[in-house]
Amino acid sequence: MKPIQAGLLGIGTVGSGVFHVLQRNQEEIRRRAGRGIEITMVADLDTARAQAVVGEGVQVVNDARAVIANPDIDIVIELIGGYRIARDLVMEAIAAGKHVVTANKALLAVHGTEIFEAAHRRGVMVNFEAAVAGGIPIIKALREGLTANSIEWIAGIINGTTNFILSEMRDKGLDFDVALKDAQRLGYAEADPTFDIEGVDAAHKATIMSAIAFGIPVQFDKAYVEGITKLGAQDIRYAEQLGYRIKLLGITKRSFDPATGALKGIELRVHPSLVPARRLIANVEGAMNAVMVQGDAVGTTLYYGKGAGSEPTASAVIADLVDITRLHTADAAHRVPHLAFQPDQMSDAPVLPMSEVVTSYYLRLRVADQAGVLAKVTGLLAAAGISIDAMLQRPAGAGAETDGERGVPQTDLIILTHTVREGTMNEVLAQMQGLPTVLAPIVRIRKEELA
Amino acid sequence: MKPIQAGLLGIGTVGSGVFHVLQRNQEEIRRRAGRGIEITMVADLDTARAQAVVGEGVQVVNDARAVIANPDIDIVIELIGGYRIARDLVMEAIAAGKHVVTANKALLAVHGTEIFEAAHRRGVMVNFEAAVAGGIPIIKALREGLTANSIEWIAGIINGTTNFILSEMRDKGLDFDVALKDAQRLGYAEADPTFDIEGVDAAHKATIMSAIAFGIPVQFDKAYVEGITKLGAQDIRYAEQLGYRIKLLGITKRSFDPATGALKGIELRVHPSLVPARRLIANVEGAMNAVMVQGDAVGTTLYYGKGAGSEPTASAVIADLVDITRLHTADAAHRVPHLAFQPDQMSDAPVLPMSEVVTSYYLRLRVADQAGVLAKVTGLLAAAGISIDAMLQRPAGAGAETDGERGVPQTDLIILTHTVREGTMNEVLAQMQGLPTVLAPIVRIRKEELA
Repeated sequence: MKPIQAGLLGIGTVGSGVFHVLQRNQEEIRRRAGRGIEITMVADLDTARAQAVVGEGVQVVNDARAVIANPDIDIVIELIGGYRIARDLVMEAIAAGKHVVTANKALLAVHGTEIFEAAHRRGVMVNFEAAVAGGIPIIKALREGLTANSIEWIAGIINGTTNFILSEMRDKGLDFDVALKDAQRLGYAEADPTFDIEGVDAAHKATIMSAIAFGIPVQFDKAYVEGITKLGAQDIRYAEQLGYRIKLLGITKRSFDPATGALKGIELRVHPSLVPARRLIANVEGAMNAVMVQGDAVGTTLYYGKGAGSEPTASAVIADLVDITRLHTADAAHRVPHLAFQPDQMSDAPVLPMSEVVTSYYLRLRVADQAGVLAKVTGLLAAAGISIDAMLQRPAGAGAETDGERGVPQTDLIILTHTVREGTMNEVLAQMQGLPTVLAPIVRIRKEELA
Repeated sequence: MKPIQAGLLGIGTVGSGVFHVLQRNQEEIRRRAGRGIEITMVADLDTARAQAVVGEGVQVVNDARAVIANPDIDIVIELIGGYRIARDLVMEAIAAGKHVVTANKALLAVHGTEIFEAAHRRGVMVNFEAAVAGGIPIIKALREGLTANSIEWIAGIINGTTNFILSEMRDKGLDFDVALKDAQRLGYAEADPTFDIEGVDAAHKATIMSAIAFGIPVQFDKAYVEGITKLGAQDIRYAEQLGYRIKLLGITKRSFDPATGALKGIELRVHPSLVPARRLIANVEGAMNAVMVQGDAVGTTLYYGKGAGSEPTASAVIADLVDITRLHTADAAHRVPHLAFQPDQMSDAPVLPMSEVVTSYYLRLRVADQAGVLAKVTGLLAAAGISIDAMLQRPAGAGAETDGERGVPQTDLIILTHTVREGTMNEVLAQMQGLPTVLAPIVRIRKEELA
């Protein structure tokens, strides 16, 4: 059988990786897939650079639509990124009857519903293993490996840039700004790091996982997104003293009404979290990724690897090419559904607002070091029914031992709470912040026991 | 479409789990699979107990062949275990045109070639996710998720019993015999623990992974198998002092000739190994499993979860049922091959004898505490071209400070070596053992850097 032919839209870091790995491992991949897989056409605005990457044997054009229009091309690989042009090209490729492979999490988190519907109608596959956690086959694990389970929750370190920064902050006692500059100098963060450090990239990925785990449409607009830009070195230190590490987690979770047991909806959130230091995922350092999945039958599983980079991402893109090659003549009704559930079997369970999320908390209060302060703070928590898990009192950081205005000694009060509804915690925090003895904005970080 | 019908052969711990999880999550599984999946017939010698598990709606028989002969049954689930009867029943099910799901690693590690050939000829699927690492979808990761890669090596904690014992030995400073008794009392080890503690179970699983990773037939008879029964508490302690943990690893690896770069063959081995304490897998404790896979494109990935137990194993069995349900009307040529490579694309690369394995070592020598001993020992290593990574000298264990016969003081000499061919190391060890100043059998444990 003649090789299956793929066309590449965009040959930057990942595209080059796909081309080189396909070439290097072509024989082994053919043995696995049962048929050769070749990239025979590449579209890139910089045709000279593209031609230099792929050599003379491959046709290079500057118009992506020429690839889509080529009747010899079976699969279109979209590696352009972004929302607008990528969306149009993917929709056109589907309309032209091409299978599509993409690494574009932003595209799928925002336009996934439209894209998967079009692909289903046209009877083509859209595969996207590379969109979440790079080379880790987490989409396949969720979509095929754990199909027996009612998934309870997923929590992942799914952004390497922020995990690298957090590791640096912890290891070297750096503040966020300094660690970010280090990460940029070392190539772990981009010149404009906004999408990474503000949690947007992680939220795109968490959105896709939430859809697959729970059979809901992708709903990025409902995700709660909080980055790591406000984390201070002292919080990482205090967390450490309490037996925790701070990680930026993407979390999605079924939430049940405790009274009736009925499903309330799906939590979908990205924010810095304290994680017990003894958890495996707490020890995932540097730019590595890891995803924990809790299923009702399998219990806890964890998937670990490189979440970005040329060849790790290419590994996932090519796995998708092999899946399509293995299946693309099969009866469409028996293909693996894009979001694990059949298209007519999507759930209408809502994504919950953040105020409905139930979790536990790390709180740090800069307070006046005087009698009665602790009683007031703990009194507010008790009145709201929030119980305390652990407490720590530490001298305030150097250079801030005294409050200039008042001249009173200050101290840091760190509290770990048991679980509580976030809406309740917000109200208590507002009350606490209003106490005259609370001298600075309260730091609140959510804590996930992941047990 | 009417539900797909499965028949269960053997309803013990795992079988009950499969039945209960299928029932509990039936709606969610149907939404994923696109079709209901039902167990409609069960064969077990203890029909009364079986009937009590499944209730009145399910037909229970004491003859497995009645299940295979039932024309309404689409899939036969083999959970009997063992080699002989299980082999006959699986072959008969295949001959009857049934798809087969099995959790039986012993069967596949020994009779896999025959079984997969028969299934390929008959055009049916034989799925076995549950055979390796229980609920962790490692077969799917290797067979589908990492298809882009030339796999370099796999190293796994794939036996929960031994990992539990090793964790106990380390945590509590116990000797093997005591830790084994604890494990038996707590239900982590069977009354006859031979298959687990001697490494046979792990070797079955490593054999299956080696075939999938490297495209070779299953060759359990070529595996090197060494258990944990000879491990002493003091070795675990010394390893700790050097920054290592001791784990029973199943390892399979491509081995290349360093001079020519040509593939020499595949390493396939199970034995206790020192692993750097900072590796994630070194921190996999208790009865948990984890598998590291090193691919040339993806780099290091790790898969972690429960390797045994009723519902974790059921999770994998049911994932196989869903895969079959999704695919079983598909064109046979486009199904996922049993061993990742197409049947006519198997490699004839040999499994290497242990003497051809190249690794590094932890050595512990009980020596006379006198001048010149160290020079003799290191001289033997140097003469064989083996370089030393680290060395440690410690007073000999309590109660053995002096050698009764000789009356000379004794000391323990611990050496970590760099990599060397095992055949060479065997020769050097024989020479060392012959030195008059070496007073006890030398302890040798292989060390894997896993980097």
